[in-house]
Amino acid sequence: MMLPPPRPLEQRIADTRARFAADMDTWVATAGADGPALVPLSFDWDGKAFVISTLPRSVTARNIADSGRVRLAFGPTRDVVTVEGTAERIPTAEVDAVADAYAAHTDWDPREQSEEYAWFRVTPRRIQAWREANELRGRDVMRDGVWLG
Amino acid sequence: MMLPPPRPLEQRIADTRARFAADMDTWVATAGADGPALVPLSFDWDGKAFVISTLPRSVTARNIADSGRVRLAFGPTRDVVTVEGTAERIPTAEVDAVADAYAAHTDWDPREQSEEYAWFRVTPRRIQAWREANELRGRDVMRDGVWLG
Repeated sequence: MMLPPPRPLEQRIADTRARFAADMDTWVATAGADGPALVPLSFDWDGKAFVISTLPRSVTARNIADSGRVRLAFGPTRDVVTVEGTAERIPTAEVDAVADAYAAHTDWDPREQSEEYAWFRVTPRRIQAWREANELRGRDVMRDGVWLG
Repeated sequence: MMLPPPRPLEQRIADTRARFAADMDTWVATAGADGPALVPLSFDWDGKAFVISTLPRSVTARNIADSGRVRLAFGPTRDVVTVEGTAERIPTAEVDAVADAYAAHTDWDPREQSEEYAWFRVTPRRIQAWREANELRGRDVMRDGVWLG
């Protein structure tokens, strides 16, 4: 199989930002006493962090409350973006400030559900982007919360 | 948005089995002392379990060695299959028995790498399959290792 040449860093960053702006869902992995959890959740990216929303009794919400550690995965498995981030709950008084943008982006508003949802802000610390094996080298596009480009 | 009607159980099982046979990669979530890990890995499905392979020094391999707990995710986020499974290392003497099928399915043979890879068998205990919100009810297609259909 002939692979295209590996994308330079600037292109990977541009592709990553474009994916964050365009995609509606992400895989969310968390860890707790029962091991790993992995669910798809809708998200909104404000340019610096992801906003996600789930039921407070869900395993994901409880794992985040315990540790705040989150991994996100975007894209098909041959055009991957992975994020290592820290999650914090958004106080109820601040939800409306993010929920309108979330609802506009995802076409779904958890505030209209009968159960109250919990909202979280996930701040990326490390981001990696690669397509095939020839892009494994140079896959870091953010480290310690700073874009490398 | 008009959604198609939810698929009945038998259709979800057929679609799930078809995806396991056709797909080459899966998202693999594990948990360890450093929180969750989430990576895409190639796999082969033999009808009962998944075979995956990764470097023994990888976080995923170390997390599996610690707990054996794995979550897998397949498909785009609006046509999801998730698997809760237990992973065990395949003894070196038994690798060749699974690696040929793995290499044929994934078009990649870890035995040709300079570093020796670790091989794992992931046995599903629970499988869920859903597309949109109207399929959340009835998403269990396997429980306690038994297909429900």
